[in-house]
Amino acid sequence: MHFETTKDGFTLAIGNRTILSHSSENPAFFAGFGKERMDMYRGNFNIEDYVIERNALRHAEVSGDSVTLASAPGQAPRLRLTLDGNAMRLTALDDTINRLWLRVVAETDEHVWGGGEQMSYFDMRGRRFPLWTSEPGVGRDKTTEITFKSDVSGKAGGDYYNTNYPQPTYLSSRRYALHVETSAYSVFDFRNGDFHEIEIWAIPEKIEFFAGDHFTDIVSALSLRFGRQPQLPEWVYNGAIIGLKDGVNSFARLEKIRAAGTKVSGLWCEDWVGLRQTSFGARLFWDWQANDTRYPHLRQKIAELADQGIRFLGYVNPYLCVDGPLFPVAEKAGYFATDAEGKTALVDFGEFDCGVVDFTNPAAADWFAEEIIGRNMLDFGLSGWMADFGEYLPIDITLSNGVDAKLMHNAWPTLWAEVNAKAVESRGKTGEALFFMRAGFTGVQAHCPLIWGGDQSVDFSRHDGLVTVICGALSSGLMGNAYHHSDIGGYTSLFGNVRTAELIMRWTEMAAFTPVMRTHEGNRPRDNLQIDQDEAVLAHFARMTSIYVALAPYLKSLSAEAARTGLPVQRPLFLHYENDWQTYTIQDCYLYGADMLVAPVWKAGETQRSLYLPGDGEWVHLWSGAHYPGGQDVTVEAPLGEPAVFYRADSSHRPLFEQLRTIG
Amino acid sequence: MHFETTKDGFTLAIGNRTILSHSSENPAFFAGFGKERMDMYRGNFNIEDYVIERNALRHAEVSGDSVTLASAPGQAPRLRLTLDGNAMRLTALDDTINRLWLRVVAETDEHVWGGGEQMSYFDMRGRRFPLWTSEPGVGRDKTTEITFKSDVSGKAGGDYYNTNYPQPTYLSSRRYALHVETSAYSVFDFRNGDFHEIEIWAIPEKIEFFAGDHFTDIVSALSLRFGRQPQLPEWVYNGAIIGLKDGVNSFARLEKIRAAGTKVSGLWCEDWVGLRQTSFGARLFWDWQANDTRYPHLRQKIAELADQGIRFLGYVNPYLCVDGPLFPVAEKAGYFATDAEGKTALVDFGEFDCGVVDFTNPAAADWFAEEIIGRNMLDFGLSGWMADFGEYLPIDITLSNGVDAKLMHNAWPTLWAEVNAKAVESRGKTGEALFFMRAGFTGVQAHCPLIWGGDQSVDFSRHDGLVTVICGALSSGLMGNAYHHSDIGGYTSLFGNVRTAELIMRWTEMAAFTPVMRTHEGNRPRDNLQIDQDEAVLAHFARMTSIYVALAPYLKSLSAEAARTGLPVQRPLFLHYENDWQTYTIQDCYLYGADMLVAPVWKAGETQRSLYLPGDGEWVHLWSGAHYPGGQDVTVEAPLGEPAVFYRADSSHRPLFEQLRTIG
Repeated sequence: MHFETTKDGFTLAIGNRTILSHSSENPAFFAGFGKERMDMYRGNFNIEDYVIERNALRHAEVSGDSVTLASAPGQAPRLRLTLDGNAMRLTALDDTINRLWLRVVAETDEHVWGGGEQMSYFDMRGRRFPLWTSEPGVGRDKTTEITFKSDVSGKAGGDYYNTNYPQPTYLSSRRYALHVETSAYSVFDFRNGDFHEIEIWAIPEKIEFFAGDHFTDIVSALSLRFGRQPQLPEWVYNGAIIGLKDGVNSFARLEKIRAAGTKVSGLWCEDWVGLRQTSFGARLFWDWQANDTRYPHLRQKIAELADQGIRFLGYVNPYLCVDGPLFPVAEKAGYFATDAEGKTALVDFGEFDCGVVDFTNPAAADWFAEEIIGRNMLDFGLSGWMADFGEYLPIDITLSNGVDAKLMHNAWPTLWAEVNAKAVESRGKTGEALFFMRAGFTGVQAHCPLIWGGDQSVDFSRHDGLVTVICGALSSGLMGNAYHHSDIGGYTSLFGNVRTAELIMRWTEMAAFTPVMRTHEGNRPRDNLQIDQDEAVLAHFARMTSIYVALAPYLKSLSAEAARTGLPVQRPLFLHYENDWQTYTIQDCYLYGADMLVAPVWKAGETQRSLYLPGDGEWVHLWSGAHYPGGQDVTVEAPLGEPAVFYRADSSHRPLFEQLRTIG
Repeated sequence: MHFETTKDGFTLAIGNRTILSHSSENPAFFAGFGKERMDMYRGNFNIEDYVIERNALRHAEVSGDSVTLASAPGQAPRLRLTLDGNAMRLTALDDTINRLWLRVVAETDEHVWGGGEQMSYFDMRGRRFPLWTSEPGVGRDKTTEITFKSDVSGKAGGDYYNTNYPQPTYLSSRRYALHVETSAYSVFDFRNGDFHEIEIWAIPEKIEFFAGDHFTDIVSALSLRFGRQPQLPEWVYNGAIIGLKDGVNSFARLEKIRAAGTKVSGLWCEDWVGLRQTSFGARLFWDWQANDTRYPHLRQKIAELADQGIRFLGYVNPYLCVDGPLFPVAEKAGYFATDAEGKTALVDFGEFDCGVVDFTNPAAADWFAEEIIGRNMLDFGLSGWMADFGEYLPIDITLSNGVDAKLMHNAWPTLWAEVNAKAVESRGKTGEALFFMRAGFTGVQAHCPLIWGGDQSVDFSRHDGLVTVICGALSSGLMGNAYHHSDIGGYTSLFGNVRTAELIMRWTEMAAFTPVMRTHEGNRPRDNLQIDQDEAVLAHFARMTSIYVALAPYLKSLSAEAARTGLPVQRPLFLHYENDWQTYTIQDCYLYGADMLVAPVWKAGETQRSLYLPGDGEWVHLWSGAHYPGGQDVTVEAPLGEPAVFYRADSSHRPLFEQLRTIG
């Protein structure tokens, strides 16, 4: 990779791909100055920029691996670019600059994917994506009533680009990936014909490029760059993780679920810390230790579950409520982020305030890892937990490392993952204890063993329902997150929107073909159907856990492959059919490893599924055994219990796949 | 007015008011280049700008009455400013520029008013106002269901700044006004503490300044600048204009309304052109001549009405439907704007297409004025009409004068007004025939004798109900529009939102204290209460027309004053109490001339009204005769029929005002 001087500027290419093309007529770099307007309300941000200056850096002077850019000849240089391996380092030569816009060469028919975990659009071409970790929104579609009501009642409706896990990285169909190394607010704008515009509210440290002959090479390289997860713990293959938050009743309900033939690997009780009553309903008590009132003798119960081969999982997040016993300990030690007056910054989470443990303070991070996750959770017997939040770092607090909270905001999910991973490692449980996160950012891959797709609405909606978790798995998978899963049945039930049996069943049968099956009772358990409340739903669920368990040897091979190559378990079709452009925009099917293709039914009332079978090989329909040649659109029957799943006729796992057909 | 050279730039002051303060550190001028994204759907626009360059013009060279601006010393000059009387002319010296941003010195506690006819916020400080003529929106408040549903069903919800009549002119509490002479899309941004930012999508011809010791002086100057309306026609003082669109039934209904004691000056039948049935409901037939089927013997009827002292009014707009007889005539003559292929550009108005008469073609404008308005309307016997639309000029059509439709869009309402005024003048009926428009822009004042506040929702809502027409009257009044009125009872009834008797009565009693009382049946007459369908409503209405007629001598004096001084009939309190800052933000009361203060009840269910009485004189409550000293907040009883109206105790019109109390 080197700069090529042209008549009036320069180009930068990777192999035969021109990435940058700069001239005074068509400059690729713009620098300037802006004042942002940012408001946060419970993890939802209202962000607007006032761009005061945006100057084209028309004049370039190339000198070997370095380029100096200025507005015009004779003007003071404002930016330096220096090549360093596969990266282009950026140095501001003018300290008034706080905005950078960069144009990357694009082709008209190019496709781009990534941006972290995107829930609405897998192919990002044609749209603009702000990259800022936040609540993803409820409804996420300004034309729906739920979005409207969420916006009005809590500024919480969201839009297509809102995500818990943004990352300024994309993969292009031109067979290269680009990563911006920055935690500043940034925007990928893929709306233009001959360039992509990248906007960054800082001068980023560097921009990295990854090229390869095949998409799989590039994804492997990204996985190495951002960190590779350990293989899935062995215990997960034993069945589903059952989410119940019903206090001691949870154990009896688990028994009933197992009695129906359900294969269970774990019991997940987020209410293990106890409850708090608010006008919104019951909330968890945000002080991270077992609550003896809600779960008497929990240690004993955990041991009894272990005897039956079932793990116990809990819940934690990076806040401590003011009325819990841990708060004064942390406050006394100075572990909290502070406000403008130097006092503990308190964040309102809805009728209760919390302190934000300041993970930029190594002592605070260590304390949280050792005392809370290490002692209160791992030593207590937990085998996993939801490591919730990470997206809410307020932008107006003061942090121990002295960095502006606006610059730490995006970095927070990764710091939070690191605290969790460190605790797990301290007990020698890496690859054994399983925590899962919705929040993410660059580098989360190295620490978080499992992504969870966040809080979908309990419906089939296009932008907040079942189908969105496929998009989340595919996009995050390309960024080096091998393992993705979601709340079976969705989470958010508001404004009378409640789960149907059909929704739970469709979600269940998709989850059987993902790395982890896990249920959630949702935000309003009593208003919503649960898997143990309907005989047909429970029977269907039980059968799907058997399929999951039967398929475990295949999943285990994918997990080994992920550790070896960085390829995710759930893959976009184009990853293995890269010359077939028809696959580039598909986001409602996925390859489950190279040999299986899964097309979940994601619309209500449908009993057939149409999909495109890629390649020139033969595909076998999982349930009927019917053969279909690849390279065509097909429609298959897909009644409840038979999601459209196919496997390659030439797969070495074919005997295993055929066996699934026999599970009644 | 002259440029004052400073150490590092210059200033421009009017009297003791510094208006511009430019230095290389804090430049007042920014120039650049943008690409707009504009979509129109039935008069509703989606507008976004992609600002590619925004460069501070830091370097200024002052030479007498001229300043040359460049990005930096030694760089090519990009903009020239030249003083010319009370104006600063602008000349682009760089033809790549298509955006200009200008910062005007502001004071923290400054207030600003104007922007054309603003319906939501009278004091514009703290907000940003795009200035682009369009539909104003239904609901105009993103937190309401009606706005949401309008947005989803027709992109029609609108927002606080949407208006039929924008104008890039403001009046400042620093006692100056600023006007930008341009028809390009522009934005007034009043959100900053020490400057106002003006954005223009072109280099404007000039920026004009108007200063005076008193607000009244400045408003008079603006009125002279933009054109002064003739006095109200004498016939208007005879009572209300009754809007009915019920074909021949309209005459019988008018009789019933008159029999209830209603004073009537005119009958307004917008359906005089006939109807078209669409799935939306009955629409007018957009071909501008009397329809003999819907109104047989209309000429005769008009004569009979005239015998009773009642005028007849109709409706016209600048389009011609493809299936009417006028369309082929206009098309053959080449009077229509054309599309990219040179064919007549057709605009879809909902199941019917129309041609746009191209008023930049003098022959087309003359034809419309002479043949349509002159012959078909005035000669036919019409005494007035709603001159509807003017905001919809599509931005992608080709016009006869060769100017980009994006630059003609804002200018269109004024051209439309001019066609109407020319027709009226050709028949010697200026000041006698009364047409009313909702659309407007700079210069509409010279042609349009009466503003109508557009299509309010039939409710008491804050951003689209009764109260908004006060804001519309006050803002447009400052721009030199002396006469404002509105549809009694509002217009838009959608999504089950219908008129209440209370709404009609409150609107009626406000209208009695405006230049013109006029009813409208609304967009869905059958679903909504009409003044002749409820005895109490009709009795209240009749009484209010008596009050209007009794007050006519006072209104006539205000009309004479308007012709003499340019002061509007409805005035913000600060116009006569300019040293009382408390009055600067009041937008739900108005002075009706200098001697009367009107505070309509604009919320449902209220029977009292609180308001601020300005000044140190005494005010008399119209209905009770109770005296109140000025300079205080008061609350008075305001049952139906007794809106909170006060008059100055020292008014020369006091006997007339006292007489109103006796009208039962």
